[in-house]
Amino acid sequence: MRRFKCIVSYDGTNYIGWQSQRRNNSVQEQIETVMEKITKQKINIVAAGRTDAKVHAYGQTFHFDTDFYLDANKWKMALNGHLPKDIYIRSVTEVDENFHARFSVIRKRYDYCINLGEYSVFSCDYAFQCYYELDVNKMIAASKVFIGKHDFTSFCANPVNLFPNQVREIEDIIFTKENEMLRISFIGKGFLRYMVRMLTATLIEVGRNRLTKEQVEQMLKAKNKDVCRLNAKPQGLTLVSIEYATKSENLLD
Amino acid sequence: MRRFKCIVSYDGTNYIGWQSQRRNNSVQEQIETVMEKITKQKINIVAAGRTDAKVHAYGQTFHFDTDFYLDANKWKMALNGHLPKDIYIRSVTEVDENFHARFSVIRKRYDYCINLGEYSVFSCDYAFQCYYELDVNKMIAASKVFIGKHDFTSFCANPVNLFPNQVREIEDIIFTKENEMLRISFIGKGFLRYMVRMLTATLIEVGRNRLTKEQVEQMLKAKNKDVCRLNAKPQGLTLVSIEYATKSENLLD
Repeated sequence: MRRFKCIVSYDGTNYIGWQSQRRNNSVQEQIETVMEKITKQKINIVAAGRTDAKVHAYGQTFHFDTDFYLDANKWKMALNGHLPKDIYIRSVTEVDENFHARFSVIRKRYDYCINLGEYSVFSCDYAFQCYYELDVNKMIAASKVFIGKHDFTSFCANPVNLFPNQVREIEDIIFTKENEMLRISFIGKGFLRYMVRMLTATLIEVGRNRLTKEQVEQMLKAKNKDVCRLNAKPQGLTLVSIEYATKSENLLD
Repeated sequence: MRRFKCIVSYDGTNYIGWQSQRRNNSVQEQIETVMEKITKQKINIVAAGRTDAKVHAYGQTFHFDTDFYLDANKWKMALNGHLPKDIYIRSVTEVDENFHARFSVIRKRYDYCINLGEYSVFSCDYAFQCYYELDVNKMIAASKVFIGKHDFTSFCANPVNLFPNQVREIEDIIFTKENEMLRISFIGKGFLRYMVRMLTATLIEVGRNRLTKEQVEQMLKAKNKDVCRLNAKPQGLTLVSIEYATKSENLLD
């Protein structure tokens, strides 16, 4: 058995997310279907994590095991030859069996894009269209509340009974602006379900002067599923890159 | 009767082009249908020119005449409130009856985008994916052949019997590169059918060392429909802006 690591980019607009669900079109299913077409075998792929419907990825990562005779480069060509135009395998590398796409993660970077300018047909599937003024400096100040190790129960959708440990560490939150596009990069080892989008929605409320940094601190401390009801739209979110011990991929490329 | 000038942007991916054709989905039809919904009247819109299937526009312009009571700003809101996400009216201005979206054009700018980097799911509908090395300096040198007033019979699809005058003037062709994206901007008063895409395809052949500047000169001089058989893919093309006597819109914004 050989193990391969794949970095995949996808435009999530037309998918229900990474993970396969019954009778729905997922990115995982597209890739596994192509693999079966190539090998005539069922191959299971294991990703670093799920992404939700309409969320994009530039550097999602998965691994799979196979005895099939293709080497890494041929795998890349064969997969891309069959995949639809909105899914593209950026690299395939043969790795040893200790590599695991989920368990070997050192850090991930998610970007949330907000279009502060006029509506654009070219960014509407890739950014949240913001129709109000945002005080970005206040957002930056409030984002410091989230940096470090915290219990993010208030800012994720995972039910506590199924996921008792909701402590995660955010290493950094970086704001960049290019023309009218505001990009918020979240860097950390792992994130809970909807966490990046709920943190973003909360920061947008701060930018609109509807929440203060102090209120955000209280929300975090509350560890309560009822204090944050907002979830920023999925199309603004992109899983940009994943760093593994085995590879020094620059997270801020 | 009042006349309104509209600047419209659209993602052409899912349309058969600007112009309405029987039983097909055109941008013009989308807009006229919305106008009929708003006014309960049939309103004809007149554009600066057509764009082909999958071609995009940032600044396509059209005008229409109506007695309906909405003023310019309300028209913009009403139209955008009904249009699909991939068509957006950037501005509506009331103009006098001498303005004509087609006949008042001073110059147009079309951009053709070529991705010289690795395939990207995010640019595949907005750029031509180029899998070979291009000598951009040779392309720039050859582009000078096209600048000025020429008979472009060799580089357009319009049949000579229906369009006897195929002389057009190209004011400038500008190359810009951002990361791995090469952008070729064509500026001139008017262009013939497929002209920008045929000129681009020819410049790509020069970049691949399959044509010389001298051969391009001969092709232009030939005024013959058989010398250029290449047409660059439509998704790389965007109608960026149109300048009118009445408005000093910067063509290179």
